[in-house]
Amino acid sequence: MNSESYQRAELFYEGKAKNLYNVKNHPELVWQEFRNSLTAFNAQKKGEFTGKGSINRDITSIIFRYLSKSLKTHFIVDIGETEMVTQRLSMLKLEVVVRNVLAGSTAKKLGIEEGASLDRPLVEFYYKEDALADPFISDDQALLLKTVRNQGELEQLKKMGLKVNQELLKFFSEIGIKLIDFKIEFGMNSTREIILADEISPDSCRLWDQKTNEKMDKDRFRRDLGQVQETYELVREKILNHWGSKV
Amino acid sequence: MNSESYQRAELFYEGKAKNLYNVKNHPELVWQEFRNSLTAFNAQKKGEFTGKGSINRDITSIIFRYLSKSLKTHFIVDIGETEMVTQRLSMLKLEVVVRNVLAGSTAKKLGIEEGASLDRPLVEFYYKEDALADPFISDDQALLLKTVRNQGELEQLKKMGLKVNQELLKFFSEIGIKLIDFKIEFGMNSTREIILADEISPDSCRLWDQKTNEKMDKDRFRRDLGQVQETYELVREKILNHWGSKV
Repeated sequence: MNSESYQRAELFYEGKAKNLYNVKNHPELVWQEFRNSLTAFNAQKKGEFTGKGSINRDITSIIFRYLSKSLKTHFIVDIGETEMVTQRLSMLKLEVVVRNVLAGSTAKKLGIEEGASLDRPLVEFYYKEDALADPFISDDQALLLKTVRNQGELEQLKKMGLKVNQELLKFFSEIGIKLIDFKIEFGMNSTREIILADEISPDSCRLWDQKTNEKMDKDRFRRDLGQVQETYELVREKILNHWGSKV
Repeated sequence: MNSESYQRAELFYEGKAKNLYNVKNHPELVWQEFRNSLTAFNAQKKGEFTGKGSINRDITSIIFRYLSKSLKTHFIVDIGETEMVTQRLSMLKLEVVVRNVLAGSTAKKLGIEEGASLDRPLVEFYYKEDALADPFISDDQALLLKTVRNQGELEQLKKMGLKVNQELLKFFSEIGIKLIDFKIEFGMNSTREIILADEISPDSCRLWDQKTNEKMDKDRFRRDLGQVQETYELVREKILNHWGSKV
């Protein structure tokens, strides 16, 4: 089915950087609009720039098409410049974070210098609950909170996180970017298959220039490093130029 | 060997509530002095009361003698009113916390009301590092930080934490006290056996009166509930009266 067949219906969820709408006559689908807003520190810091919604939509779209060769994603089709249609899933209240290099609050928490490489990737769970500022949780706490049904599902999430990491390391290394860490979210379809959802963009990844270690992600906004818009645009360009025709 | 055979040598570690000394001619032992000081919130809040060192020494001593029937502990012998001699261990930089009921910062973190019972006990690891305020860590982070050698040792710690919990639930229920949660620490001996160490007292446990749910532990100090000294004394009395002749 091509994109012209879909019609946007009512807004049902307003996130920090995306709006979600129903799709007319398609209860099994969601219409996602990527906004220009940018938030950090659990939305205590807010910003925006022109074109951001379009950049993150394009990056997410290419990455999800690339990943769909190796795992199931919610992506269906792009619409216009800032939107996409995806499968409707029952979203898990978990953020899955995978780290190749320690950075940010986790480096600080563990008392290890930012930039320290890890012998093997770390997979972490955070409880997705804005009111609690998305706390870091253990497997047992994830089960206690009924974010999934059992340890087997947690193991599956870890495995999928590591698979996404493996594919994204390749994806970014081919365009001269080091993948430091990233956050992904998953949902369940009606048969309780785990499907990759949400977005993958400079909002949700730490990306460093392979040669200079220059930050090419939301840390430019978090830490007031400047050139936020230009950097996001550069990441899109590198991705489009190299991967645009391949996925 | 009885207690008179030991002589205290130089102080080598000053903790928040205990001082550790060498034992003359016994490099394999440690002399532990329980002080009257009381701290909370990573030592941001400080207090003390007369007799506290003696109370916590007595409680720890009885509990360790009780637990030594079912697992290995560092306890050797009491000295005077506030001291004991223990095995010298290579201490793990981990705090092991076991919870039967959610309370304190973890209840808050997970957005669950204090007092909520758990279907099964939760075992948690915290990285013992004052400068980092003892952060909550996952198994993988505990391995990354080299707090132990491998996942097998972590599993052993969890198992021992649950064993201590099982024994302590019985210990306290017989004297009308609910064991809400507790923190324990372990060390390794020279053959890398895991040995229960440190202390178990109202400083390191949450204890609620079985009938009234009245707090009988350091939360009285943390939360300025008053009757701190009287409550610690009451816990000692209950323990001595019931368990004093049995362990």
